[in-house]
Amino acid sequence: MSGLTYQGSGVDYDLLDAFKRECQAAAGTTRGALAAHGLTEPPAIRGESAYLVELPHAYLAHVEEGLGTKNIVADAVLAATGRSFYREIGIDTVATIVNDLVTSGARPLVVAMHAAVGDAEWFRHDQRRRDLAAGFAEGCRLAGAVWGGGETPALKGLVQPDAIVLAGSGIGLIEPKARRIVGDVAPGDAILFLAASGVHANGLTLCRRIADSLPEGYQTPIGDGRTYGEALLAPTPLYANAVAAVQDAGITLRYAVNITGHGWRKLMRLAAPLTYQIDTPGDEGALFRFLRAAGPIDLKEAYGTYTMGAGFALIVRASDAAAATAAVAATGHRVWHAGTVLAGERSVTVPSLGLAWADHDLALRDDASPI
Amino acid sequence: MSGLTYQGSGVDYDLLDAFKRECQAAAGTTRGALAAHGLTEPPAIRGESAYLVELPHAYLAHVEEGLGTKNIVADAVLAATGRSFYREIGIDTVATIVNDLVTSGARPLVVAMHAAVGDAEWFRHDQRRRDLAAGFAEGCRLAGAVWGGGETPALKGLVQPDAIVLAGSGIGLIEPKARRIVGDVAPGDAILFLAASGVHANGLTLCRRIADSLPEGYQTPIGDGRTYGEALLAPTPLYANAVAAVQDAGITLRYAVNITGHGWRKLMRLAAPLTYQIDTPGDEGALFRFLRAAGPIDLKEAYGTYTMGAGFALIVRASDAAAATAAVAATGHRVWHAGTVLAGERSVTVPSLGLAWADHDLALRDDASPI
Repeated sequence: MSGLTYQGSGVDYDLLDAFKRECQAAAGTTRGALAAHGLTEPPAIRGESAYLVELPHAYLAHVEEGLGTKNIVADAVLAATGRSFYREIGIDTVATIVNDLVTSGARPLVVAMHAAVGDAEWFRHDQRRRDLAAGFAEGCRLAGAVWGGGETPALKGLVQPDAIVLAGSGIGLIEPKARRIVGDVAPGDAILFLAASGVHANGLTLCRRIADSLPEGYQTPIGDGRTYGEALLAPTPLYANAVAAVQDAGITLRYAVNITGHGWRKLMRLAAPLTYQIDTPGDEGALFRFLRAAGPIDLKEAYGTYTMGAGFALIVRASDAAAATAAVAATGHRVWHAGTVLAGERSVTVPSLGLAWADHDLALRDDASPI
Repeated sequence: MSGLTYQGSGVDYDLLDAFKRECQAAAGTTRGALAAHGLTEPPAIRGESAYLVELPHAYLAHVEEGLGTKNIVADAVLAATGRSFYREIGIDTVATIVNDLVTSGARPLVVAMHAAVGDAEWFRHDQRRRDLAAGFAEGCRLAGAVWGGGETPALKGLVQPDAIVLAGSGIGLIEPKARRIVGDVAPGDAILFLAASGVHANGLTLCRRIADSLPEGYQTPIGDGRTYGEALLAPTPLYANAVAAVQDAGITLRYAVNITGHGWRKLMRLAAPLTYQIDTPGDEGALFRFLRAAGPIDLKEAYGTYTMGAGFALIVRASDAAAATAAVAATGHRVWHAGTVLAGERSVTVPSLGLAWADHDLALRDDASPI
């Protein structure tokens, strides 16, 4: 059988990428503005998860991000069961912003919400409306950031009448500057995985298509006591406290990867010729076993698309691995020493699962990088 | 005849406001996060156009904003004439963010784009796509800010298939802190108006309804050599250089108002019991004469909704009015001494036009304030 793939989801990435490239080129022409402030951006910062400006005593980090289409699942579950998962969706929205922000080494400071509806009627459902506000605040608390403001327009003719587009922005500071995570990864470094709670905000189009194919839809049990909908809507963890804990312990983080689009391929985000060998992939969990069977989704497609139980990766010197693991564990995140960086071609390998991705499997053009 | 009003535009502001209030309450519970950083937010900052955090040597300013539905006009004009106004739309998107940001006294530092389409096919039109990127960069240049990044998702099922939702965020710094604009307005202060280019990004739903009622639609001449569509799509000025020029001249700005939703009512944004008397409203220009006749739109409705030729207001001590006017004029913006602040009830009056708005005409609940 052929199985479902993410490339079949109907989005023409060539067109999106053309726009992204044009934006990157146009954005590059504005760098001179920083010089007028006596400031600079770090070399090669564009395409990283967070944009940075170097101030005299700190780096300022900025992320603009959106939740994607995950809340369509929450709307479907609400319609079918009456249960609102918008508290979880609020947390997810903050997590998409903040988990990118902290890969730079920044501590999140301020987060703003952008919630655009097609019709103000969306807000007539009291529980959903209140859950979204409460969840966004909860996400900010988990991030250690203040919810500073935002915008809530009704955009008739742009947003679907029964829909809400959730996005926002975050600001962080990297202080002292030595806490900046610069990607100075070397062969022999240790790869730590931090547990995911599920799909996070990633690969939802495929999840929705699978729901459509199931007789019970989102109410299908996945085998761990939860329904498919409940499992999909588990809120994304905030990894800010884990990053801070490792740094507070005096350990240098050589790189941090928010495992979002492109799943474990994202580990080779750096351009350097390095192999990321995962010897202990960990348990994928009931949701991903269910997804693989129900799709069906091929093992390589699954690990190349989803978190598969690992939502965030930290790369440290091998000699720091035990202390970093202990520091993360103390924050409550489940963490394990998952693998090792090797000299070689830019690639990701998972020998125990027979999986490998080569350089061309995560080209810049499909890196899902910001502008 | 009854005339068109903005309240009839079909948006249920009671529902939007309920959500906004719940967000403000929830956001307020996250303030403690700043204390953990050893930082604070200024008192009464929530509801202002920009959110501020006080750092040791500066204030950090943050704005999340969206363009609204203006680009629907650009799409209609493109379909009818083949002419892309997306360069202008790109500038407008930056202007909505930055013109709010600078009301705090901040110098814009970084702007990020959020451009969410319903279908990547939106980007198939080469000129439109390139114009949008070029215009966003041009807006950043005019703002003196660097375009730092952004996000360009395809959100099938959330955004209309042929639409793009344009928004973004901006960061600025207020340094030295004395440049913060705090709203210490007093009776006798001078009100300076800076010329608008047209409707900016404000009141477009009503403009679109008027277009639908015209036999020639957006191709209708408005009497100054331009079509209705061309006039609507004139890009919004960036007022950042004007604010900076006044401050660089050593003049204290007591308040700054970005005249967006609610038109000139926005002048009484402060809670203080003060009357803003406009003695020299200036020429509204051909577009607004056309809009008032074509709607028809009542004079009070027009001034209570649109820029009416005045896009930004600066309030300074009377003794600073001449020097501030000269400083703004040197930046190329048309500027005039439009009126005076008086002791009295919170209100706005335009005696020469027979217009007046009382306290209840700009209640907090319809202030179009951010979260």
